[in-house]
Amino acid sequence: MPFGYNGRILRVNLSKGEMRTEEPGEYFYRTYGGGSCLGVYYLLKEMDPGVDPLSPENIIVFAGSAVSGAPAPGFARSCIVSKSPLTGSIANTVSGGYFGPEIKFAGFDAIVIKGKSEKPVYLWVHDGEADIKDASHIWGKTTGETQGTIRKELGDGRIIVAGIGQAGENLVRYACVVNNLKHAWGRCGTGAVMGSKNLKAIAARGHNKPKMKDRETVLSIARHFATNFMKESVDNITLHDFGTAGDIMPQNETGQLPTRNFQTGYFDKAENISGERMKDTVLVKGTPCYACPVSCKKVVKADTPYQVDPAYGGPEYETIAMMGSDCGVSDLVAICKGNELCNKYGLDTISTGASIAFAMECYEEGIITREDTGGVDLRFGNADAMVKTVEMIAKREKIGDMLAEGVRRAAEKLGEQAEKFALHVKGGEIPGHDPRVKGHLTLMYALAPQGASHIQAEHDPAFAPGWAPFFSERANPLGILEPLEVSSIDHKKVRRFFYLQSAQNALNTLAVCTFALAPVRYLTFRELVDLVRAITGWETSLWELQKLGERTIAMLRAFSVREGFTKEDDWLPERMFEGILSGPCKGQKVNKDKLREAIDLYYEMAGWNKDGVPTKGKLAELDVSWVAEELEKRGKYRK
Amino acid sequence: MPFGYNGRILRVNLSKGEMRTEEPGEYFYRTYGGGSCLGVYYLLKEMDPGVDPLSPENIIVFAGSAVSGAPAPGFARSCIVSKSPLTGSIANTVSGGYFGPEIKFAGFDAIVIKGKSEKPVYLWVHDGEADIKDASHIWGKTTGETQGTIRKELGDGRIIVAGIGQAGENLVRYACVVNNLKHAWGRCGTGAVMGSKNLKAIAARGHNKPKMKDRETVLSIARHFATNFMKESVDNITLHDFGTAGDIMPQNETGQLPTRNFQTGYFDKAENISGERMKDTVLVKGTPCYACPVSCKKVVKADTPYQVDPAYGGPEYETIAMMGSDCGVSDLVAICKGNELCNKYGLDTISTGASIAFAMECYEEGIITREDTGGVDLRFGNADAMVKTVEMIAKREKIGDMLAEGVRRAAEKLGEQAEKFALHVKGGEIPGHDPRVKGHLTLMYALAPQGASHIQAEHDPAFAPGWAPFFSERANPLGILEPLEVSSIDHKKVRRFFYLQSAQNALNTLAVCTFALAPVRYLTFRELVDLVRAITGWETSLWELQKLGERTIAMLRAFSVREGFTKEDDWLPERMFEGILSGPCKGQKVNKDKLREAIDLYYEMAGWNKDGVPTKGKLAELDVSWVAEELEKRGKYRK
Repeated sequence: MPFGYNGRILRVNLSKGEMRTEEPGEYFYRTYGGGSCLGVYYLLKEMDPGVDPLSPENIIVFAGSAVSGAPAPGFARSCIVSKSPLTGSIANTVSGGYFGPEIKFAGFDAIVIKGKSEKPVYLWVHDGEADIKDASHIWGKTTGETQGTIRKELGDGRIIVAGIGQAGENLVRYACVVNNLKHAWGRCGTGAVMGSKNLKAIAARGHNKPKMKDRETVLSIARHFATNFMKESVDNITLHDFGTAGDIMPQNETGQLPTRNFQTGYFDKAENISGERMKDTVLVKGTPCYACPVSCKKVVKADTPYQVDPAYGGPEYETIAMMGSDCGVSDLVAICKGNELCNKYGLDTISTGASIAFAMECYEEGIITREDTGGVDLRFGNADAMVKTVEMIAKREKIGDMLAEGVRRAAEKLGEQAEKFALHVKGGEIPGHDPRVKGHLTLMYALAPQGASHIQAEHDPAFAPGWAPFFSERANPLGILEPLEVSSIDHKKVRRFFYLQSAQNALNTLAVCTFALAPVRYLTFRELVDLVRAITGWETSLWELQKLGERTIAMLRAFSVREGFTKEDDWLPERMFEGILSGPCKGQKVNKDKLREAIDLYYEMAGWNKDGVPTKGKLAELDVSWVAEELEKRGKYRK
Repeated sequence: MPFGYNGRILRVNLSKGEMRTEEPGEYFYRTYGGGSCLGVYYLLKEMDPGVDPLSPENIIVFAGSAVSGAPAPGFARSCIVSKSPLTGSIANTVSGGYFGPEIKFAGFDAIVIKGKSEKPVYLWVHDGEADIKDASHIWGKTTGETQGTIRKELGDGRIIVAGIGQAGENLVRYACVVNNLKHAWGRCGTGAVMGSKNLKAIAARGHNKPKMKDRETVLSIARHFATNFMKESVDNITLHDFGTAGDIMPQNETGQLPTRNFQTGYFDKAENISGERMKDTVLVKGTPCYACPVSCKKVVKADTPYQVDPAYGGPEYETIAMMGSDCGVSDLVAICKGNELCNKYGLDTISTGASIAFAMECYEEGIITREDTGGVDLRFGNADAMVKTVEMIAKREKIGDMLAEGVRRAAEKLGEQAEKFALHVKGGEIPGHDPRVKGHLTLMYALAPQGASHIQAEHDPAFAPGWAPFFSERANPLGILEPLEVSSIDHKKVRRFFYLQSAQNALNTLAVCTFALAPVRYLTFRELVDLVRAITGWETSLWELQKLGERTIAMLRAFSVREGFTKEDDWLPERMFEGILSGPCKGQKVNKDKLREAIDLYYEMAGWNKDGVPTKGKLAELDVSWVAEELEKRGKYRK
């Protein structure tokens, strides 16, 4: 038997209240893997382009993978894929926690949901079965209330709930879905898709641990990792001690901490919002994802000046950067409160922070008035204003109603003057990393079909000496042999980006965490291949996994092409071509000509034609000629 | 240290009588590996296009690799790369035996030779040193006499001699180079290049076994292979018992044994020339390459009707097919004699057999007369005529002088009527496998920059049930998951060809034998990666090795593009579009439209533009942007 792994997928039609199970077979699993790739497969196959993302015609896929749920570090993730109400392109968002493993234990690799329920419902998936259950009594509730009610009424405190809060119900375009109250599928507005379908939550519980071809190898790698991961690796120690918040200071010291809506990369009060400060003050503990000893997710608690509920976890780097420095906010407790509200209401902390930062700049420039904000003094640095605006966004109150549409739509409403403050690509807000400092981010943001995303490829570490182990252990097996100047976007950087992008997209498709691999030394690509082989029985290789990543990239791109996105959408906001205002990288900016050249080179490298459409040859190479046929049918290949 | 391996290259200028050693460094070795890739690197870097292949300006490179000479099965090969006097494109030819390991033991990974000696010389490479020695006394001698004289005068019977016979001296355009009298760098006429440089031989002897990063792993894989390679594998048993001659019967039974200049694929006297018959009659023993227990190379001996000297080894499948069935010859001893003469005079058995088959068809059609042949009755099936013609070619006597130019030039001389019998691609004669039966051969022959070559990608086994283990062990780690219909050339076949072509070109560059891997089960890609890693210390992967193969393909292609070859040259001779005349595949032919489509799809897949030129993007991806600059400089990118 050449493939090994086989599994089941749950199909749900909410309009009809129907469910069924399908077994797509071994070839399917090995070709599409899970996560991002499995998700976009169903969207390309079963949905027409042009549907309203908030209509019943949209499809939403929750996907683990052939390997998720294995008892090894990093195999705890899962993916939501849908058409994004924020961008109109693909929604593709990953989360850690327990949901991916739990649906696997319940007998499913993925759940594909169509239609719209007449009344609020939640889905209850348990030990090979599924029920659609009434959710009228939890509609309007927070994620915490939702989880509590469901666990109570089903009588099992260990049920994993992935649900939305009021933001999703209110169709905030960047509403997210949250599991275990602190792990979010943050980006692209999939919470609003759930809201539009009257789907409040998916609750999962299963008792069947997945069979593995070679259990001993899996356990032995996991044990080795657990015993050794803290040794010799600055990255691991930082992640374990501070979570990703440990990156705040290095980012600031190297001049790339987004500050005041990306006006600058240096925040003079960074220490106040650092991982170190968090550890010294509000930090309670780390809380792991399934089977992972890294515990990069943190729990915080505070009573003053805001009461912060530890159930909702603590802020990650992105949250601190976007709701903190990017809003000029230096009050760590306020940021923790903002984080708590985002997880409670179900809001993406990145887009929320970016939208508030955008609004603050508009406010300071007089484009938004105090009348618009309902009296809130929305200047940079006003922590309380930031917290209040989060509430307004979730509830679509006052200025929050406009900001709930995302910066692109808000700027369209506010007029030309506001547009230059709307930092987005394809409608997706730019996250907390600055392409003016790290060259590979120019490609990452410009090219991601889902709009600016920071998880398209492994980053250069913020602190330069960290490069060395990364270089030799992650990039090296890919044949990336030289360290490159951080800000460059020459042909060697394009190559490195393309290879690392394939690797990251393979991880997103296998639903494996980059952090289990990023702080390398004890889980390299070699062990990843060994793990995938041991779990599935596939006689696989790094070649095949890289091609899985490339296939994912090509299919995500095909989706965005099919929805009408073109070469013109692969670009950065104007601010990125203007100098950083202060700090160690003062004056640094992206060179337009070099970026144009790099993007064109990337197209050729990735096997896309001059219009940015994946060629028939590339799609055939990736064994998905049916995608080329779909693009042909939709007239996407110029005659 | 990210790279690990470093080594030395010997540079020789025969015009000046100068030599020097260079250490190109670790990045070079890991990027270009050795063999084909290392060879074409020097040609692209240091030679202008358009030089006469038989002029002093041509460069000839003898290359082992970073891994050759390791004590593991299959690591015994080496490559000669030059500009071919037969095709005017790249000469790229591999041989087993002992030469690759021996130059490594003598301290060199490769020897790069330029210029022309005033008088005949040979090169003596020994324990880190090299001397240019007079060869006047051996000029005009056979390879056997040459080897004997050199060993005697240097006083060491274990010296490895790679030399030419009279064919190379006489500039026969497909003269070959032979080591140990029986292992030939057969194709593309590199023997004539040596002849043109007055370079009779390279003699090598060294006593330094290469250092390895992890000797124990290498030895343990080698031991495991030696103990088990005969188990469970039909291929291995066949190779060990009969050599490649074991393929004669399966090829014939499946209708694809080239017969009478490819008129048909079924030879009714195949049994007479089979591996089984060889074993029962003339076979003496198997004789291994360095460190390999397979011993696929055979030794034969006969006294009548021809005296066959066992020193020159026995015929392989290709030799039997081309000098036997393709000439209609069913006399096994005559074929053994033809093989002996080819190794003695230094002639490629494939091009020699193909040229004689061509001449026989011309003779039967009245295009060549008995006068032309000096009285030889050159009809199909005349064993004695075949043997005599080999002599005439080597010595450029009578019809032999014209045939020594290869079928393309001979047909040009004989006129239009002869052209349809000249079976070549880009001037390189078609070897003993029929593209009308195996679809992947259409691409292999049409696209190889060196002209029709059968070692561009692993073949479907001749006998269909053999596919299963091949499928699961060789193709499987590349993500080739489905068996494909043998004659198809659809998009799935193009994909499989491209992936297997990269793999094979990686082997040609690492100078590793496909036969150690082809009869899989005990040396799969997984062990190959482990071996390369253990030998060199590189943290490598199958991804990197596949990319090494792709890089090789792209650079070889760039060379042929630079020499003026175009898309129009990527095609098959007309006979391949006409039905096979008899046998199990009677009527089968290549479909022109499908082949055109497959070639165009391949271009896109390989990252070549519509003119068949590797794009800047692909070359940048392969980390050889300098090749794109070279093509740009030579005006090869259409404006």
